[in-house]
Amino acid sequence: MQWNKTLEEIKIYEAGKPIELVVREFGINPADVVKLASNENPNGCSIKVTEAIAKNAHKASLYPDDSFYELKDLLAKKWQVNDNNIIIGCGSDQVLEFVSRALLDETSCVLMSKVTFAMYEVYAKQMGTKIIRTPSYQHKADEFIEAYHKHKPKIVYICTPNNPTGDGIKKVDVLKIINAVDKETMVVVDGAYMEYAGAKDEAYKITPNDILDYENVIYLGTFSKAYGLGGMRVGYGIANEQVISQLLKMRPPFNITTLSLISAIEALKDEEFVQNSIFTHFTELKRYEEFADKNGLKYIESYTNFITYLFDKHDSTKINDELFKNGVIVRNLASYEMNAIRITVGTDKQNSRLFEMLERLL
Amino acid sequence: MQWNKTLEEIKIYEAGKPIELVVREFGINPADVVKLASNENPNGCSIKVTEAIAKNAHKASLYPDDSFYELKDLLAKKWQVNDNNIIIGCGSDQVLEFVSRALLDETSCVLMSKVTFAMYEVYAKQMGTKIIRTPSYQHKADEFIEAYHKHKPKIVYICTPNNPTGDGIKKVDVLKIINAVDKETMVVVDGAYMEYAGAKDEAYKITPNDILDYENVIYLGTFSKAYGLGGMRVGYGIANEQVISQLLKMRPPFNITTLSLISAIEALKDEEFVQNSIFTHFTELKRYEEFADKNGLKYIESYTNFITYLFDKHDSTKINDELFKNGVIVRNLASYEMNAIRITVGTDKQNSRLFEMLERLL
Repeated sequence: MQWNKTLEEIKIYEAGKPIELVVREFGINPADVVKLASNENPNGCSIKVTEAIAKNAHKASLYPDDSFYELKDLLAKKWQVNDNNIIIGCGSDQVLEFVSRALLDETSCVLMSKVTFAMYEVYAKQMGTKIIRTPSYQHKADEFIEAYHKHKPKIVYICTPNNPTGDGIKKVDVLKIINAVDKETMVVVDGAYMEYAGAKDEAYKITPNDILDYENVIYLGTFSKAYGLGGMRVGYGIANEQVISQLLKMRPPFNITTLSLISAIEALKDEEFVQNSIFTHFTELKRYEEFADKNGLKYIESYTNFITYLFDKHDSTKINDELFKNGVIVRNLASYEMNAIRITVGTDKQNSRLFEMLERLL
Repeated sequence: MQWNKTLEEIKIYEAGKPIELVVREFGINPADVVKLASNENPNGCSIKVTEAIAKNAHKASLYPDDSFYELKDLLAKKWQVNDNNIIIGCGSDQVLEFVSRALLDETSCVLMSKVTFAMYEVYAKQMGTKIIRTPSYQHKADEFIEAYHKHKPKIVYICTPNNPTGDGIKKVDVLKIINAVDKETMVVVDGAYMEYAGAKDEAYKITPNDILDYENVIYLGTFSKAYGLGGMRVGYGIANEQVISQLLKMRPPFNITTLSLISAIEALKDEEFVQNSIFTHFTELKRYEEFADKNGLKYIESYTNFITYLFDKHDSTKINDELFKNGVIVRNLASYEMNAIRITVGTDKQNSRLFEMLERLL
């Protein structure tokens, strides 16, 4: 069987290790496992969502309203855009996939920061596209603009705040990059964790409305992080109508579940949950900074719901594996060529457990 | 913005009209709407599933186990295959998308029956691939083999029982097609409705195990129909390990939701629900045959959970639209160039309503 040539370069993506794996491999009681690896919301999700799921469980047999009428309507109101500026994805990941498949081929290249969200590369490689990276893991406007002029990429990915490092790029610098590229280059502003950055510092806050007038920019948002719906797989892209009408051609029907649709709608009706989550988060984040200072660890200042600890005297893989054996799951960044671990800021209790275990290893 | 050339040929897929639309457009009470348009299971799903959803609603915030360990394990036992023979999709649709993207390009063509599942064409067109169709809407082995020799398609789609017509093709004829094509052609055996065909007539029953020894055949199954999980979006492909390992390269992480995973696992533990659904279905299907005979309507003998009425004196679009205005949603097949409507066999009460409304229009 002759498979498409692009498949030769693709490795199968391995997601963060699930709780079930630790339970299976080390026989640890599921209740004792602390998972701080996937940037889920440690507060769960709004009770309005869980109540709606329970109440509508019988709708599991029914396909969703594939127009996503009510969800788009609420999103449009929230962001002051129109329904036809919105595309819904199975996570914002899927919108990334649509963008990639609609624009890339084997002759194009894409530009991203040295260390950033893994799926940009995965989806580009599926199209046989070349990957260009800036020298720094931080998003530096000058580096992006220089690389843009040199390589003329078809897509520029700006992940702010950045995953898996946690740093952000100011709105003024994002606009500098956008204004430097011509209209044949699509700029993806991935705001999956934007709720956190925006709450921390107004200068880092970017909304879909900031980019709507550009004909070559798309903003990505998600319900997986601040809204606490990681397991429901709902994200969205917002852009001008021409961009959305092209991307809709790549969208399969019923790409989110009936209960995901209901969940996202309910989540948008409880912004208070999001604000409370963010408030609690920043209180707990402070403990991570204090722990690092106390133990002589370096860290990247976080604009999001996780923190990245940088090691010099220790080996991140060794620390990651020791934590794992003890039922504490974090994300080793060795595969990103960083001697670092990314830790989701959890609940008070989860964080205390992490500190206790990590302190033993330092 | 220069979009990929293949997009020029793609129209946006329009799914069956949802209940919400009828409610919005005609102000009909949702409880009075009878939707027999999307081949959902009129019995809903197993109570084990709805209970598990309600109990696990709080897991909405947690990503699923992306290895799908437990689900694959249960499927492997059910079908007597190994875990590495299985790929999970967001509906079996998504597995079709993986196959298409892994094998097709602008130089290839694909072969399918004259009238068949719309997504084969949609996914092939996304790759810029040419569509070849057999002369008949029925799957006739000789027509497939003749067209195969003439066009040497990269993929042959066998949809059995066929959607949207409802007819089936015998296992012996499916194997005739498979044995006629060489190993550079992938044969997709789409068994989305196979539970119904297999229950009706053993000669039409094909299982994944029947095709596992072929290195160029994949069987598709779904939880959307007999298992009653249309809204949860879970399907699967089963093939030899080499095929699956290639397709996994196209699978995005977390492509089904946490509650979808839980639902599919629970659904597999209640085969009695499936058997009962199928039994009730065939009792109700008989009423559709009797109604047709009584009213001088032709129909295609159904091997699945819907029936296709063929018109000569009446216009399917007119009938479809009149039913729609009265809150009865069926599927008009005019866009398939058939003067026919496809009706999902519903509950006793839903079917009576359909008969009552339709009788007025004949």
